[in-house]
Amino acid sequence: MKILLTNDDGIYAPGIYAIYKELIKFADVTVVAPDSEQSSVGHGITLNNPLFVRKVSRKDKFFGYAVSGKPADCVKLGIEVILKKQKPDLVVSGINFGNNDGCSIFYSGTVAGAREGALMGVDSLALSLDCWENPDFTESAKVGAKLTKLVAKNKLPKGTFLNVNIPQGKIKGILPTRQGTEPIHGQFEKRRSPHEREYYWMSGKNPTHVNDNSIDTYALRNGYVTVTGVHCSLTDEHFLSKLQEWKF
Amino acid sequence: MKILLTNDDGIYAPGIYAIYKELIKFADVTVVAPDSEQSSVGHGITLNNPLFVRKVSRKDKFFGYAVSGKPADCVKLGIEVILKKQKPDLVVSGINFGNNDGCSIFYSGTVAGAREGALMGVDSLALSLDCWENPDFTESAKVGAKLTKLVAKNKLPKGTFLNVNIPQGKIKGILPTRQGTEPIHGQFEKRRSPHEREYYWMSGKNPTHVNDNSIDTYALRNGYVTVTGVHCSLTDEHFLSKLQEWKF
Repeated sequence: MKILLTNDDGIYAPGIYAIYKELIKFADVTVVAPDSEQSSVGHGITLNNPLFVRKVSRKDKFFGYAVSGKPADCVKLGIEVILKKQKPDLVVSGINFGNNDGCSIFYSGTVAGAREGALMGVDSLALSLDCWENPDFTESAKVGAKLTKLVAKNKLPKGTFLNVNIPQGKIKGILPTRQGTEPIHGQFEKRRSPHEREYYWMSGKNPTHVNDNSIDTYALRNGYVTVTGVHCSLTDEHFLSKLQEWKF
Repeated sequence: MKILLTNDDGIYAPGIYAIYKELIKFADVTVVAPDSEQSSVGHGITLNNPLFVRKVSRKDKFFGYAVSGKPADCVKLGIEVILKKQKPDLVVSGINFGNNDGCSIFYSGTVAGAREGALMGVDSLALSLDCWENPDFTESAKVGAKLTKLVAKNKLPKGTFLNVNIPQGKIKGILPTRQGTEPIHGQFEKRRSPHEREYYWMSGKNPTHVNDNSIDTYALRNGYVTVTGVHCSLTDEHFLSKLQEWKF
């Protein structure tokens, strides 16, 4: 089994190394990941800058290819250039340091890595750990490897990928879920630079969570691994019939 | 009617000025746009850098607020800080220089501007001109203003926004469409820098277009303005029932 592995925390992050060690037990893994942290870059791609690629070692052994771009760049360049247009069996993105459930899905570079895989016709999954300090990727890497094997066995529909979020600490189980749609409200702290210029720093206010284990935002905080099937066809089909009645 | 106007080509781009001139004929328009070009940044947001804001004039008159961030930042900061949490009636994003139909929707900062508006609970639309050189935004600005009025009149479902693409030249009509799902394949040109380092430059190979005016990619190239209702709930509901049968 051939796996292309990427992330958005960068090729030197602990999360990608943890899942790598699990995946190489059963697969041929090619790592193509950003050379620096690319958190919250969404599905951005690099069209107006060159992409440099260099080989990276970890623990004195060749680990993978660092790209001066974003996760979606890594998947595109990984398949087209590094794998010489030979599609892998799977694209795995992560493990992200921090949750990517609910509307985080729009901002996440990790999720975009998996979406890019799906767009290129490869079964893909994004893995994220719900933790913001002192992460321990041991358990989440095992869960990630288990789900990777399940995807390889069961396959995914064309244009659909899995967005997986894993709680830190005790895991109650694995649940198929829906993406939470409650927005993350931006909060802006006004500050003053050493040069006396005002600036703003954005943070996010966590959304309200409905008490419903079928929604990823709730089930994750309730201790479950959430597995959401995400598709790449964004048309609101229900609204389309109404739109057809508009007088243009 | 209060409108928040943004784009991804930057506050000095011709497209945003063209639609601004049309919108101020019937609305109170607040421009909050990136201070530099932010094409293909997708739905990225700025969490690890400060956001600076400055006032910008065009033709010796106050035009709007330039933000050192991405389109989604501009919408968040525009509503939270500049409009002091007072939601506008509409968010308009564009007019983009270049098409954002089909799978471009994932990479586009312009589309992300409208999606962020929708996430914040505001009826929103993204406007893009299908043209890559010598753009003339005169006609597309009129079409954009017309569609903006229609959205204000008819309203949109919660969490759904409009992705509008407008052909350059003669317009055959306005069609409700679906997002094309054919992927845009990245192509990488290998080059050598003046410092003798190899690099790659990405371009995109246009997707194949099915002969079907209900798909935006085809209808746009066939001379129609395409209006696609895009939703922010990405769960593949059909696949969810299959996923529930997986043995976790």
